[in-house]
Amino acid sequence: MDLRSDTVTKPTAEMRKAIAEAEVGDDVYGEDPTVNRLEELAAEMFGKEAALFVASGTMGNQVSIMAHTQRGDEVILEADSHIFWYEAGAMAVLSGVMPHPIKGRNGAMDPDEVRRAIRPKDIHFPRTSLISIENTHNRSGGRVVPIENFKAIYEIAKEHGINVHVDGARIFNAAIASNVSVKEYAKYADSLMFCLSKGLCAPVGSIVVGSKQFIERARKARKILGGGMRQAGVLAAAGIVALTKMVDRLKQDHENAKFLALKLREIGYMVNPEEVETNMVILRTDNLRVDAHQLLKTMKERGVLAVAFSDSSIRLVTHNDVSRSDILRALDVFEKLFKEFRL
Amino acid sequence: MDLRSDTVTKPTAEMRKAIAEAEVGDDVYGEDPTVNRLEELAAEMFGKEAALFVASGTMGNQVSIMAHTQRGDEVILEADSHIFWYEAGAMAVLSGVMPHPIKGRNGAMDPDEVRRAIRPKDIHFPRTSLISIENTHNRSGGRVVPIENFKAIYEIAKEHGINVHVDGARIFNAAIASNVSVKEYAKYADSLMFCLSKGLCAPVGSIVVGSKQFIERARKARKILGGGMRQAGVLAAAGIVALTKMVDRLKQDHENAKFLALKLREIGYMVNPEEVETNMVILRTDNLRVDAHQLLKTMKERGVLAVAFSDSSIRLVTHNDVSRSDILRALDVFEKLFKEFRL
Amino acid sequence: MDLRSDTVTKPTAEMRKAIAEAEVGDDVYGEDPTVNRLEELAAEMFGKEAALFVASGTMGNQVSIMAHTQRGDEVILEADSHIFWYEAGAMAVLSGVMPHPIKGRNGAMDPDEVRRAIRPKDIHFPRTSLISIENTHNRSGGRVVPIENFKAIYEIAKEHGINVHVDGARIFNAAIASNVSVKEYAKYADSLMFCLSKGLCAPVGSIVVGSKQFIERARKARKILGGGMRQAGVLAAAGIVALTKMVDRLKQDHENAKFLALKLREIGYMVNPEEVETNMVILRTDNLRVDAHQLLKTMKERGVLAVAFSDSSIRLVTHNDVSRSDILRALDVFEKLFKEFRL
Amino acid sequence: MDLRSDTVTKPTAEMRKAIAEAEVGDDVYGEDPTVNRLEELAAEMFGKEAALFVASGTMGNQVSIMAHTQRGDEVILEADSHIFWYEAGAMAVLSGVMPHPIKGRNGAMDPDEVRRAIRPKDIHFPRTSLISIENTHNRSGGRVVPIENFKAIYEIAKEHGINVHVDGARIFNAAIASNVSVKEYAKYADSLMFCLSKGLCAPVGSIVVGSKQFIERARKARKILGGGMRQAGVLAAAGIVALTKMVDRLKQDHENAKFLALKLREIGYMVNPEEVETNMVILRTDNLRVDAHQLLKTMKERGVLAVAFSDSSIRLVTHNDVSRSDILRALDVFEKLFKEFRL
Repeated sequence: MDLRSDTVTKPTAEMRKAIAEAEVGDDVYGEDPTVNRLEELAAEMFGKEAALFVASGTMGNQVSIMAHTQRGDEVILEADSHIFWYEAGAMAVLSGVMPHPIKGRNGAMDPDEVRRAIRPKDIHFPRTSLISIENTHNRSGGRVVPIENFKAIYEIAKEHGINVHVDGARIFNAAIASNVSVKEYAKYADSLMFCLSKGLCAPVGSIVVGSKQFIERARKARKILGGGMRQAGVLAAAGIVALTKMVDRLKQDHENAKFLALKLREIGYMVNPEEVETNMVILRTDNLRVDAHQLLKTMKERGVLAVAFSDSSIRLVTHNDVSRSDILRALDVFEKLFKEFRL
Repeated sequence: MDLRSDTVTKPTAEMRKAIAEAEVGDDVYGEDPTVNRLEELAAEMFGKEAALFVASGTMGNQVSIMAHTQRGDEVILEADSHIFWYEAGAMAVLSGVMPHPIKGRNGAMDPDEVRRAIRPKDIHFPRTSLISIENTHNRSGGRVVPIENFKAIYEIAKEHGINVHVDGARIFNAAIASNVSVKEYAKYADSLMFCLSKGLCAPVGSIVVGSKQFIERARKARKILGGGMRQAGVLAAAGIVALTKMVDRLKQDHENAKFLALKLREIGYMVNPEEVETNMVILRTDNLRVDAHQLLKTMKERGVLAVAFSDSSIRLVTHNDVSRSDILRALDVFEKLFKEFRL
Repeated sequence: MDLRSDTVTKPTAEMRKAIAEAEVGDDVYGEDPTVNRLEELAAEMFGKEAALFVASGTMGNQVSIMAHTQRGDEVILEADSHIFWYEAGAMAVLSGVMPHPIKGRNGAMDPDEVRRAIRPKDIHFPRTSLISIENTHNRSGGRVVPIENFKAIYEIAKEHGINVHVDGARIFNAAIASNVSVKEYAKYADSLMFCLSKGLCAPVGSIVVGSKQFIERARKARKILGGGMRQAGVLAAAGIVALTKMVDRLKQDHENAKFLALKLREIGYMVNPEEVETNMVILRTDNLRVDAHQLLKTMKERGVLAVAFSDSSIRLVTHNDVSRSDILRALDVFEKLFKEFRL
Repeated sequence: MDLRSDTVTKPTAEMRKAIAEAEVGDDVYGEDPTVNRLEELAAEMFGKEAALFVASGTMGNQVSIMAHTQRGDEVILEADSHIFWYEAGAMAVLSGVMPHPIKGRNGAMDPDEVRRAIRPKDIHFPRTSLISIENTHNRSGGRVVPIENFKAIYEIAKEHGINVHVDGARIFNAAIASNVSVKEYAKYADSLMFCLSKGLCAPVGSIVVGSKQFIERARKARKILGGGMRQAGVLAAAGIVALTKMVDRLKQDHENAKFLALKLREIGYMVNPEEVETNMVILRTDNLRVDAHQLLKTMKERGVLAVAFSDSSIRLVTHNDVSRSDILRALDVFEKLFKEFRL
């Protein structure tokens, strides 16, 4: 049972078939029909003018930052966001811009704090040119940032002539959980990145959507990163399956996560099922004799994989390659471990 | 009365004389005897191998960051530090590195938080290669970061193979106020920048001190920034006066600041004299009918200049060009304003 | 007939099968068995410790530059090389390094000029930290840079403590044409990038080979660029077919190119068959009434695609999707055009 | 006799007096009256809207590049220009832009080659956003780039929406030698940097002139570099003397250089007096038994300093601190050396 991340999901049989039969061309010349089809489909689903296929979520976030900013600018983002936390300092290297982190609540930044963080025009200050929102928010345990928060921040941004980017690696999880369409979220974003891999199971790839002008700049940025790929239709074919066939089933992942959380709490683990909004469960180890790393080690020996979020918390992620019966088997393991490790 | 900053101080008569008579040479060839003398003097005062004269405090901080880091690294610093707040995003532009801001208490970061902020070795993370301490800490109102805090952070840094930089723009104020020598502070720093301008009254210039190897790298970085100056001895001559004649008098600025704070509180202003450790006074406007910007405007009309730290706080700075009688005249103005503006 | 580039080649049936059946895992965790197999195979073929799969030749070159250099360094390269010409200025953006272009002869830099271009140690100069050789050399018409040139430059580099990178996008064409193994070329390189797409027909991907330490740094650089892909085994599976089945057939492309050149000269075109060493033919338009762009336009209307190298030269590339009978049909078109356009 | 460079010139007595008496203020607040006066004077002399005082010629060139370009752009410049040769790779570090060097003739680039070097709009190419001209051109021996060349290149630039920067470190030498005003040269430049140090003898400082909008961006760039100085009036005071009193005397330096060249040729040295247009003499060592470095060493032992331009050429520079009688004494040394060293 691999509960480390939904990134481990393998392509479905339908995806493999689509890949094998994909019509391809040279995408650097704009001639891969499958890539073009995927980009059009994505733009339409998100109500944007254009879309760009990229190799990863990180690449999608970074080409967006490159396209929105100039060197010396500043980007307001949540202090636990993926861009600040897990992208290897890329924004400073690639764009020459600084993060301005704000600690949010369940991943959502307080709009008033965002407003205060915007830099006045002064020669001492970097120019605030971008605000980034992450939804669902990974490090808070897959929490959904509410559409009202999007609206409030977008309004502030527009008052100040600032763009808004959405790191929507798991925006479909947010949409399913909140019953708010991805198109509605995208309304309050000048650019949005989402992943075809992760919960949607495509082997490789993410998409950035936005205006034509933005996508043209992002495409140039992708070229600079060496992200222009040739017959990328072999990947895009799986992406089309991901977008057309795999979205609705995310609710099963959410149900599995909720079920897992409830059962873990029953066993005695420190888990709050009310905080499980999508496909992630955060388990704290404070009432155990072992810390997060030791717990993970023993879990691994018994066939259950997960990752640490800190010395005293682990994250469990449900996805297409974990069925309800896998969950039940994992719970057996957890039950035994609790007996061994509880304080 | 210009209480905006100690940066407005003008060179003394002795400095002007020294400048006019300075023996000079081409410092890009390392041949300016006055620059060389200043650098040796500085290195010796701080107990370091070598020193480098630079055009400003910002330049001193930035060449230090360039010398300590590689692109893609991360620098831990206090969330209200000058480097994060007032250096125009330079660290991302010049060094390609990200700040990792930690909110301190009176400018001092909690060593435990610093430890937690150090990134483990993992491909997702930037490498933490530098921790920066600011002393005195400007945005907290000129507070002194205690030597114990230096020791604790330095120890953590060394455990992890990380360098420590000190933004000591006003390190002499810290030394005078804490009765701890600058040499002692510098013990817990791999590099330290201090300003000859500001309270020490030199017209232009700051110094970076550190190991020979570090200074060699900083010198190359200074060249990249175009900070190599030719007959810089005209500036260094004033710097020598600053270091040898102007340090002790900083205690007068501190006494004036304390006096100003006590009197302002007597008038009724929201000022805490106990927080006045050096040459800065923070005045909050919460009990006035006007905000900081309106107060400053009226003060200016009556001949008293200061700067806003936020919409509801202003900073007053004492220095060599503000005498006790200037302070008394400023207090007259403040007394009248309080009557007009109090809630 | 698409003679624009060997980048337009489509995956073979065997590749599509391999892709569809590829065993995959999460390569960001290092767990994709097919990627791992491809990287091991590549390292072994080139006699290097390690290898890294990347999304494109540009990404391979750029992560190599990032791994070999520090900001402020300089890279010696041929004035018509791909890195200087076609990579969107990436080296300055990503690595903060300058190119030092040297005009070569048939793509090969004169070792003496390389030696003279190495910067002495002086504060005014960037540090020369890398020399890059391109083989085959695209803009000179697919010319092979001789192994002797590699040896001479490598020796100079090592005298000066400088690394050598090889942009071997078409190194297998060079190896086939010169009867020198890729392993032999790689001996004189600290890093080498080659493409699985282009003549080898894989849909997407290139490989960088080098020491373990170098590959570790390149892997980190790839992460910064967002080039870490998840179930990349679907691409790597085709790459394995490319490396094991598609190398030998490159000699057919070379024969086709030579044949095409000879016939074009017979028709009357300015083409030098002796300069055709691999799969490219350069045709000059000086003896035509039209320039390169007009010629290409008319060729396109009649079904033959190629690209301009300048206003008076076009490049024709042979590859797996162009058979001898395609060449013959293209020659029919060229014959008619010559009658219409000759001066 | 220090013939290494005009950068070694020391401030005149009048400058020292002006410095000592300079009226100063905090230039970061725009309140230094002497800096303001110098900037207005400079703008007016060059017929531009605004000017900015900077610490060095390198800083002036680099803030101009930062102001004119965005990351990923390309700058066309002469292959032996100071910006490419002696600025420590700064343009790649600070601006993330690439140089596109063109080999000129006596420092002047062929306008047709400039035109050809401009990149077409294509995703593979960096954007050409700046052309830089150096006048006088240092590494060609202080040659004057003719005003016709300025006009031709400026016209091409404007056709393509590209800006032109002039590295006019020694533009006054060019103006004196060519009898073309600096204002006339500046007509064909969107920005121009010139030095107050060098032949004009100010101890420190250079100026950038251009439109108000450009200078605003350059000022922000200067802040990022830490080039904002406080009471910079002490330097600007000397700069005003340099601009108002020291320009005309440059013709003496030119006469001295010409005289030196003629006499050196008489002695037998390989020197071409016809190539001496300003204050530099290039002497080739091909007819000596020693190379440039050995010659310099012996010269130094006998009290004459100069610098090498290559293994077989040295540069001699005349300036305010070298009188005609100094030249005569240097010639005595050269005469003896020739007897010892001639082949």
